Amino acid sequence: MFVSEIGEFGLIERLKAIIERSDETVNVGIGDDAAVVTYNRPVVMTTDAMVQGVHFREDLIDAFSTGYKAIAASVSDIACMGARPMHALVTLAIAKDTLVEFVVSLYEGMRQACDDFGVTVVGGDVVSTTGPLLVSVTATGELLGEKPLLRSGAKPGDLVFVTGDLGGSAAYLHLMEHQSTAILAPEDVAVLQERHQRPLAQVRMGELLAHFEGCTSTNDISDGLASELHEIASASDVSILIEAYRIKTLPALRHYARLAHVDALSFALYGGEDYQIVGTVRPNRSGALLAMCELQGIQVTLIGRIEDASPCVEMMRDGRRIELKKGGYDHFS
Amino acid sequence: MFVSEIGEFGLIERLKAIIERSDETVNVGIGDDAAVVTYNRPVVMTTDAMVQGVHFREDLIDAFSTGYKAIAASVSDIACMGARPMHALVTLAIAKDTLVEFVVSLYEGMRQACDDFGVTVVGGDVVSTTGPLLVSVTATGELLGEKPLLRSGAKPGDLVFVTGDLGGSAAYLHLMEHQSTAILAPEDVAVLQERHQRPLAQVRMGELLAHFEGCTSTNDISDGLASELHEIASASDVSILIEAYRIKTLPALRHYARLAHVDALSFALYGGEDYQIVGTVRPNRSGALLAMCELQGIQVTLIGRIEDASPCVEMMRDGRRIELKKGGYDHFS
Repeated sequence: MFVSEIGEFGLIERLKAIIERSDETVNVGIGDDAAVVTYNRPVVMTTDAMVQGVHFREDLIDAFSTGYKAIAASVSDIACMGARPMHALVTLAIAKDTLVEFVVSLYEGMRQACDDFGVTVVGGDVVSTTGPLLVSVTATGELLGEKPLLRSGAKPGDLVFVTGDLGGSAAYLHLMEHQSTAILAPEDVAVLQERHQRPLAQVRMGELLAHFEGCTSTNDISDGLASELHEIASASDVSILIEAYRIKTLPALRHYARLAHVDALSFALYGGEDYQIVGTVRPNRSGALLAMCELQGIQVTLIGRIEDASPCVEMMRDGRRIELKKGGYDHFS
Repeated sequence: MFVSEIGEFGLIERLKAIIERSDETVNVGIGDDAAVVTYNRPVVMTTDAMVQGVHFREDLIDAFSTGYKAIAASVSDIACMGARPMHALVTLAIAKDTLVEFVVSLYEGMRQACDDFGVTVVGGDVVSTTGPLLVSVTATGELLGEKPLLRSGAKPGDLVFVTGDLGGSAAYLHLMEHQSTAILAPEDVAVLQERHQRPLAQVRMGELLAHFEGCTSTNDISDGLASELHEIASASDVSILIEAYRIKTLPALRHYARLAHVDALSFALYGGEDYQIVGTVRPNRSGALLAMCELQGIQVTLIGRIEDASPCVEMMRDGRRIELKKGGYDHFS
């Protein structure tokens, strides 16, 4: 059934039933001119849009996962500021001949992400467009520590850390676009697909860092490690040196890279959509950071250090020091 | 020059310079993963999207006014909850061949609205699309009174009030779509155009109502008076009776309606985009409401009353009681 058959108000009723969540911080939820929510601390807010054919390909990601990722992307930005993600508003622009099932599945994916990350959708807007589907998520959260974690606090001598493994999402995209999945073991395909379709925003790590003494900067990895490091270098007015062999990638990614004759590291450096947190820590606090993450079951790796030089990002690889370009996606170039 | 020639980051720098505003409630503004703002009271939040060709026609409204209206529409939702609008996030989806000048003018309009309504844009997302331009504004504000003003509090016996005059925006659209502007005096055209292009969100009225004892419900008029009254009737489980002769329209609108042989009242009832506030007040407080608005220079009119019956909206006109359909725009029908 097309959305045109049930109409705007019929559609909104369906979506409301999927996305509404019990949440004691919500005084007024979906249904009035605006929502009313309770905050006891400074409010952290961000918005992030995804357009079909630009940010995702309908044939490579299903509606459920698209919804999941849309929430995860905004939540990730909140978490890496040292804040607890709490509420979201969703704008959806779709064509009149979109299937109701598709939209329902999209919202079911959003609901799953909301449950996983502890976020409640309190409102939104559903509009028609003659163009490709667009989903835009505004997320808000509560600042946890005294100050937010910014990109701008890195100092020479600080060490660079990153959570989890990188490049899996990009490797899956590359596989689907350039190869047959038959070249890779099914379990490897499944692992990469999981990275692409169900990225885990680092909510717990954001909470821990907010209260951790000695974390000097953070950035979430949406555009690839190189691009995010450039943002820290530029905002902090420092240079960054990382070591290639320290960057964690999945075995499945390395298997694929070998079979497809591509550089495994390029997925980590320039792929994006990992939604891990990269940041810097004072050197005398790096042991405490590792111990805390170990205790909490969060994978974290030290991959480099901050140097006192004009903003740039370099990488040691096979004994050579090479400069990393910013990379990342430019929407208009 | 096309946006593709200056690239995403070049464009964002230009837009940031236009939209950034000094605001002591903003701890972290545009430029990091998220913004950080200070709230001392519950947070009111809403989002509203406009799509070219659906919500506006490029040939009938310029970029500046489109930006102005996008901010006004979201701010209006915040104000009518009894809250002070404070911050906004803007999502913009545009084609690569959009002119930089167009986008700059759009943001200059947003900036003007922000200055007029006391709102600061603290972040956003600019993405490319192959479809029509979409601008989505999330606005947040601080609740002023003890409780928000909802659609659901109207009680039998309450009187219905509405601010300003209605239908001017819709009349301008009708004029531009169906007639030559030559049929109307230039000063009348200018007045209607102003209503269409620079709607004034009722920020001051929202503040006053928040602290006014006896306002039982509110709704902002984005979809036409009839549709908004239906929402109050439905949410409050009451029926509403209004009197046609009490509804305020502009002389320019009436001149146009007479010349174009259309019913002047239909613009007020079914036009929309007035961004006035319609609401209900306890009968023993209606005099105080009128006095307060008189003192503050805000035009307000009592147009009807709440009755104890199943939700519906009726209007007395020329001695006859007629039922008003909901009307309003359905995006998917």
